[in-house]
Amino acid sequence: MSDHIVRSYDADLEGLRRSIAEMGGMSERMLGDSTVALVRRDTALAQKIISADQRLDNLQREVEEKAVLTIARRQPLANDLRELISAIRIAADIERVGDLAKNIAKRAVAISGQFSPPHRAVVGLEHMSRLVQAQLKDVLDAYAASNEQKAMEVWRRDDEIDALYTSLFRELLTYMMEDPRNITFCTHLLFCAKNVERIGDHTTNIAETIHYLVTGQSMDENRPKLDTTNILVDLPAANG
Amino acid sequence: MSDHIVRSYDADLEGLRRSIAEMGGMSERMLGDSTVALVRRDTALAQKIISADQRLDNLQREVEEKAVLTIARRQPLANDLRELISAIRIAADIERVGDLAKNIAKRAVAISGQFSPPHRAVVGLEHMSRLVQAQLKDVLDAYAASNEQKAMEVWRRDDEIDALYTSLFRELLTYMMEDPRNITFCTHLLFCAKNVERIGDHTTNIAETIHYLVTGQSMDENRPKLDTTNILVDLPAANG
Repeated sequence: MSDHIVRSYDADLEGLRRSIAEMGGMSERMLGDSTVALVRRDTALAQKIISADQRLDNLQREVEEKAVLTIARRQPLANDLRELISAIRIAADIERVGDLAKNIAKRAVAISGQFSPPHRAVVGLEHMSRLVQAQLKDVLDAYAASNEQKAMEVWRRDDEIDALYTSLFRELLTYMMEDPRNITFCTHLLFCAKNVERIGDHTTNIAETIHYLVTGQSMDENRPKLDTTNILVDLPAANG
Repeated sequence: MSDHIVRSYDADLEGLRRSIAEMGGMSERMLGDSTVALVRRDTALAQKIISADQRLDNLQREVEEKAVLTIARRQPLANDLRELISAIRIAADIERVGDLAKNIAKRAVAISGQFSPPHRAVVGLEHMSRLVQAQLKDVLDAYAASNEQKAMEVWRRDDEIDALYTSLFRELLTYMMEDPRNITFCTHLLFCAKNVERIGDHTTNIAETIHYLVTGQSMDENRPKLDTTNILVDLPAANG
């Protein structure tokens, strides 16, 4: 490629990475804010998150279109092709994180008039959400720095999130059994917890994409939790 | 392009469409079988579905890789580029359908030892699943025939699925309030219903991709349900 084309190609990649960084920041804020909206029953904040999601969807479409057009126009070779495919995949994962945070915000609105369960019912969710926020931040930093080792640390920590989800699931069922007036609220909390757990799964997807981007290899080893079918009978949560 | 290249290019597209047809058939069976496994508490059938999902994941990766390589090698123009992007998107949606069906199968295993709620608790889910199976079949047929009109019919019918989900959600909460022994089982049914509703969303995504493929335009009009935030307070289900 001529020098001019190479430079404009680098500018394309740079632009994609910038858009993804913007998307990542937005998705982190959406997850944090949706948890606050739920815990404080702040419907105004919840509505803000619901509206913000459209911008994230638009950015994802833009990243996808730009990356595909770059592939079609420039016929990139292995390394650069990987960079573009990774951008498409990571943007898709971040967009899903936004959807899940938006769903938590919608549930914050839905339960605003409901009977209030004991405060401890939301403490576990808050804790789990904070852990996942840290995972999301770390994996986005790992992407920005093309740091495969850091990405793999995030990937390995997802087990903790899954364990926390299973324990929270059991806890919420207990509150429901104790007092039927808790059922509606706690059901929404169960779905919120599932959303947070799935956001955790998207951070591991992003970690896997970083591994592919940096090493050129797909991770064929499955996440450990995908192989836990033997212990599933004991698990109320039915992960994955 | 020379005649030879055009023919080999057509063979690439043909191969992708064949893989997607295979994926579509698999995902339809997985949804149908997972519902049967849940209703009959057939853990052997459930395990079969859980194992089958790996094949679907592999096919999706293959479609994605082949489509991207075709884009990189052949620099397709507008129409053909759309065909390849659509293949990537539809394969991703079908793969998600498989994941959701697998999750239903896992829940069928998880509840196999649980207290049995009244049979009517599963009747609503069965009904909803049958409707979504028909939607999935119709949208895959629409893709095979590049029939945009048929795709739009599927897209419009998703409202029925959402309404059914909301009513099923309320019904299951009622069983939980009637008898605390129903709580664990019905919670799993709630998640299964949510999974079926989300499979419905993936069929509308596929319908939107067919619209884009045939007309060259993205659908900028949102699905009606995305704008129901005003009635959300009354909705326990917090769709979307």
